[in-house]
Amino acid sequence: MNTAYDDAHGTDSRNLDINDPLRARVAQAVAQVRATTPLAQSLTNFVTINLVANAQLAVGGTAAMHYSGEEAAALDHGASKATYINMGTLLEPFRTEYPAAARDAAEHGLPWVLDPVGAGAGELRGDILRAFAATPPTIIRCNASEAIALAGIWHLDGADARARAGVEASDEVDEAIDAAHALARFTGGIVSVSGAVDLVTDGERDFRLPGGSVWMTKITGAGCSLGGVTATYACVADPLTAAMAAALHYNRAADSAERESNGPGSFQVAFLDALWNTTADEIAQSPIYVS
Amino acid sequence: MNTAYDDAHGTDSRNLDINDPLRARVAQAVAQVRATTPLAQSLTNFVTINLVANAQLAVGGTAAMHYSGEEAAALDHGASKATYINMGTLLEPFRTEYPAAARDAAEHGLPWVLDPVGAGAGELRGDILRAFAATPPTIIRCNASEAIALAGIWHLDGADARARAGVEASDEVDEAIDAAHALARFTGGIVSVSGAVDLVTDGERDFRLPGGSVWMTKITGAGCSLGGVTATYACVADPLTAAMAAALHYNRAADSAERESNGPGSFQVAFLDALWNTTADEIAQSPIYVS
Amino acid sequence: MNTAYDDAHGTDSRNLDINDPLRARVAQAVAQVRATTPLAQSLTNFVTINLVANAQLAVGGTAAMHYSGEEAAALDHGASKATYINMGTLLEPFRTEYPAAARDAAEHGLPWVLDPVGAGAGELRGDILRAFAATPPTIIRCNASEAIALAGIWHLDGADARARAGVEASDEVDEAIDAAHALARFTGGIVSVSGAVDLVTDGERDFRLPGGSVWMTKITGAGCSLGGVTATYACVADPLTAAMAAALHYNRAADSAERESNGPGSFQVAFLDALWNTTADEIAQSPIYVS
Repeated sequence: MNTAYDDAHGTDSRNLDINDPLRARVAQAVAQVRATTPLAQSLTNFVTINLVANAQLAVGGTAAMHYSGEEAAALDHGASKATYINMGTLLEPFRTEYPAAARDAAEHGLPWVLDPVGAGAGELRGDILRAFAATPPTIIRCNASEAIALAGIWHLDGADARARAGVEASDEVDEAIDAAHALARFTGGIVSVSGAVDLVTDGERDFRLPGGSVWMTKITGAGCSLGGVTATYACVADPLTAAMAAALHYNRAADSAERESNGPGSFQVAFLDALWNTTADEIAQSPIYVS
Repeated sequence: MNTAYDDAHGTDSRNLDINDPLRARVAQAVAQVRATTPLAQSLTNFVTINLVANAQLAVGGTAAMHYSGEEAAALDHGASKATYINMGTLLEPFRTEYPAAARDAAEHGLPWVLDPVGAGAGELRGDILRAFAATPPTIIRCNASEAIALAGIWHLDGADARARAGVEASDEVDEAIDAAHALARFTGGIVSVSGAVDLVTDGERDFRLPGGSVWMTKITGAGCSLGGVTATYACVADPLTAAMAAALHYNRAADSAERESNGPGSFQVAFLDALWNTTADEIAQSPIYVS
Repeated sequence: MNTAYDDAHGTDSRNLDINDPLRARVAQAVAQVRATTPLAQSLTNFVTINLVANAQLAVGGTAAMHYSGEEAAALDHGASKATYINMGTLLEPFRTEYPAAARDAAEHGLPWVLDPVGAGAGELRGDILRAFAATPPTIIRCNASEAIALAGIWHLDGADARARAGVEASDEVDEAIDAAHALARFTGGIVSVSGAVDLVTDGERDFRLPGGSVWMTKITGAGCSLGGVTATYACVADPLTAAMAAALHYNRAADSAERESNGPGSFQVAFLDALWNTTADEIAQSPIYVS
């Protein structure tokens, strides 16, 4: 797979040196979450809220789920070190509650992670996403379609402004590269685009992460729960390290789970087990193509 | 089991000819969902929303869950080919959102599947179910109690008009036969009543589908997720074929999962695996008693 | 473990006689739930609603989940024998719906179980918890932090009035002993505090239940679903017996599941299987330290 990947991406891409400090920071983030069980709060959709919480626990974190700007503020004054907001299954009250939670995180100087699920579908979703532009997310975790749609919603220069509706990935990651760069430059943060080969970018450097499992597309919530785990890692690490640690942890756990699965049911069980059991070194020593 | 079933239902019932075109249509629907991953959207209860989505993915479809008439319309203009509405865990806004989604499906000429969970319990549920009469569902997936209650709510001739409350099956399928016929004639569609032996009817012909597993009643969401999978099949097949394919797929997967289970936890895991692994031929060659 | 426990608690604590009538009542409750599949209704959070329902089914009960005082009343007039209210993931309409459900249970003389998740966090939660004081719960199932916070919210004498926010257990059970006693005396019911060693008290006698698994803290919903199962047992038994049966059933099932688990995913599957398979005698003959 690595060879095929190299062929496709030519000589601009090289595997990150095994001694690069980023790898050490990833390993440290994994160990630190397990040692300190940090709390990330989540405002997330009803479909996969259980998996988000269980994935956060399985990597060693602590979970608190709610739908309230007021509770977000209460938690930000206390134990919560990062916030995750996921745009699935919106209800009308979320129009004000979600932007309030984003504002509160920003006011406390705490990182927040956005999963713009379904960006481009519906006026309520568009209104909330536009409101987020005032206090933009520290990390965006999305698929290619959503990156393109969100860049359009925020009218970003250099991005393909097509606003596409849809909750499933319909574009390859590389089609979203311009949008991802534009989003990262606008937010000053990190964009993590999931696909067959994941992309993590700060708008300058692109990190491509091969591996993972096709089963991830045959269970609901792989992407949503990766967003939640990214917030868990953002409790203890800088945004780039957090996005990398979460995506690499997911890929290595998925590799392992695939070997023990007979279908999507057993895959999800094995995946949660593997999140718990995968070592910090396995995660940090993953192939990482940088360009 | 088949023999006992025959004894109970006498000579009016015969196994559908192995070469009947309906069986070929069922096999084709199973293959086509797996080949084309069609999108059915769902407005469904919070208890089992995750299982509905995972079951739709496990049969090969694509899932999009929300609670909004506006999003239903957006999806109907785009990728969604069928809608599923399930009446569990209602919130007040669903009073207008759910009928709007049903209307939108009807206006787009797209099939929609209703699961009237808890029909007879509560005024809000009654109001929404009454509103559905204006644009009735293409397929109703329910248990016997709910069929009887819904026929009563719609004041259908020939149906037992007792409005019973309850979320669990308390009647045998055959007690609901008049209600099922009345519902099918009123909607011009299909009624699929789940039980120890399932009933699928268009109001003229009755198809009875033996098999499945008692474990299906010991996990939450077997019926709800069958409704969702019925919508997935309605994306690619006529309503009768869709209802048959979904119910047969469920019965064969449950047969298989039961053999690998030690309790309700392992049954659900094995069931999702089996939805993925059961072949189109296994499904289409199931016993089908027609009368 | 028992030895260490004895050491820690000295001579005031003794194992309940193997022939104590309470053990017989526990065994009878377990058998009766399995024989009669009683219905407990739940108004519970969106994170773990699926596990609550599946756990209630796995111990032999029947589940009905909703968010409506009106539906609570409809079910209380019918099949429901107990109500469970869990304070996670509150939405604004629950401000009136949850107290209405509690009132309705009280007016019908039916038991209701409260899980005060996150007590101390947010005004909405505080308002609802204060409203419950008018028709207090028959059984409170909580962790130590929540017991302390709830006693403070209700201004109970003898309790530590610190109102702490938080959804995760941060105090040891014994730190909450005064709060638990105050709550039990105020409600006239039972308080069940989960921890490494669980505490069940009626305000006079304290029962401590060792065992269970640390994995229970690494899946979401162990406590929430124990609350639901407590309501299931309250359908067929007095409050003390119900709280004891539920907590002991959970501990024995967790012991068993831990032996078959490789991580949090397989633990949850094995735990649901074990709820189904653990015998009434295994549950009733558990170590029970009384003081």
